[in-house]
Amino acid sequence: MGARRGLTAAIQGEQGSFSHEAALQALGKSVRVVPQPTFSALFAAVTSGEAARGVVPVENSLFGSIHESYDRLKANPLHIVAETKVRVRLCLAARPGTQLAAVVRVASHPVALAQCQKFFAAHPHLQAIPAYDTAGSVRDLFAADATADAAIGSALAARLYGAEILREAIEDHAENYTRFLVISREAAPPKGPSKTSLVFTLHNVPGALYAAMGVFAKRGLDLTKIESRPIPGRPWQYSFYVDVLGDPQGALGEALDECRALAQEFRILGSYPPAPGDGGP
Amino acid sequence: MGARRGLTAAIQGEQGSFSHEAALQALGKSVRVVPQPTFSALFAAVTSGEAARGVVPVENSLFGSIHESYDRLKANPLHIVAETKVRVRLCLAARPGTQLAAVVRVASHPVALAQCQKFFAAHPHLQAIPAYDTAGSVRDLFAADATADAAIGSALAARLYGAEILREAIEDHAENYTRFLVISREAAPPKGPSKTSLVFTLHNVPGALYAAMGVFAKRGLDLTKIESRPIPGRPWQYSFYVDVLGDPQGALGEALDECRALAQEFRILGSYPPAPGDGGP
Repeated sequence: MGARRGLTAAIQGEQGSFSHEAALQALGKSVRVVPQPTFSALFAAVTSGEAARGVVPVENSLFGSIHESYDRLKANPLHIVAETKVRVRLCLAARPGTQLAAVVRVASHPVALAQCQKFFAAHPHLQAIPAYDTAGSVRDLFAADATADAAIGSALAARLYGAEILREAIEDHAENYTRFLVISREAAPPKGPSKTSLVFTLHNVPGALYAAMGVFAKRGLDLTKIESRPIPGRPWQYSFYVDVLGDPQGALGEALDECRALAQEFRILGSYPPAPGDGGP
Repeated sequence: MGARRGLTAAIQGEQGSFSHEAALQALGKSVRVVPQPTFSALFAAVTSGEAARGVVPVENSLFGSIHESYDRLKANPLHIVAETKVRVRLCLAARPGTQLAAVVRVASHPVALAQCQKFFAAHPHLQAIPAYDTAGSVRDLFAADATADAAIGSALAARLYGAEILREAIEDHAENYTRFLVISREAAPPKGPSKTSLVFTLHNVPGALYAAMGVFAKRGLDLTKIESRPIPGRPWQYSFYVDVLGDPQGALGEALDECRALAQEFRILGSYPPAPGDGGP
């Protein structure tokens, strides 16, 4: 997308969250993030025009797909216009001047705390304190009633709230990335090769998914992701989400037409430039 | 499996949970459930022999797959020996003699509370109180320090703990089922047609998943489920979990051999009699 002056982007969570980092990475430094308490509020803010874009986490390389994001992408008539992958690098942040030896209570979101088990094992005097989110736990170090001595969050959160980073990259697994999608009310397909995300349902007959995948495979098109989600009211039947690389003006366009003809429901969620480093299943 | 006198089955959660109901359904009325606080403890109890079986929820027809269960099925050298599907029917239970009009505080697990939004909307005087789990919230109605007037849980929990059911089937969606797998230290493949669950990883080349699915499709074998989970340390690469119907002594056996040859890692998690009512993608 490149930088756009003053573009607003709804995120779920606080300033300084990894969603905020994703917004900066995908939309440039001039982006203004609009924090939302829930995914529902995020999608509503983009639908209403309150924010020009939304930045939605869809998958983490250790924990897998974020179901709610997939369900809302299908349910809302918005378009994916970009993707970005953020390395989840966790820092121990504290009020300036704090020494690690003086830290006892360390606050963060339970998922972030769980991702730093080796760090806690190596520093047995530290107590993990569950909090509402990572960035908020850094911000709350400066509240009048602060109860934690340090917090685990992004370097961005430390910078934004004026905290000092005592230790960097304390997460257990270095290969920890979250993939985010940028959504908008208008589609913005790039010219030429891109990544296209679609969602479809199939007639409930054996081999239907294999046949749908075949329209891409026989053209040598690379599927980078396939995800299934249940269809409420139709137990053990699924919506399939597929990401595929190719040129919608070329072979991919033919494949999409063929897939649409096989499908029961079918919707293209968007075409956008692929982030670097994609392999495919 | 049929009834077996005194068979022990580890479940995650309390007596009276839907896992308990699944154990009764899959293993018969004489099963003795061994409650465990976590999935980790459940798998450990089966591995150590403390319990002869484990009963693991893997998917709900509204909410989708339970990631942790899939990850642990791969990580532990246990075998799937049965499956069962439990209808999630939620009841409002209270101490005997309680009238609905006198109920204010209703406790349950947050997910169960979220599944009864229409009931709460129709009874605006009720307050939803989050609790540790469904069955425990019914049991705790009888604690000396009980703070709730009613709880939402299974009919089994109401019966076990002596609560009175004030309203039945208060869940928003009737088509709410959870699929459970029964795990054991020894495999127990049935004779003839069955369902087989396997997990594999593939070489990271375009079309690899399509080729793996082709070994089943070309033999007309019905895949009832495909699930992907991230491989830690290999971002955007996946383990694939497949359930397939067929006779391991016949065409399915050939297909499994062919799939194994295509795969990087490959493991059969078990063959077992399919529960009724399976369609396939």
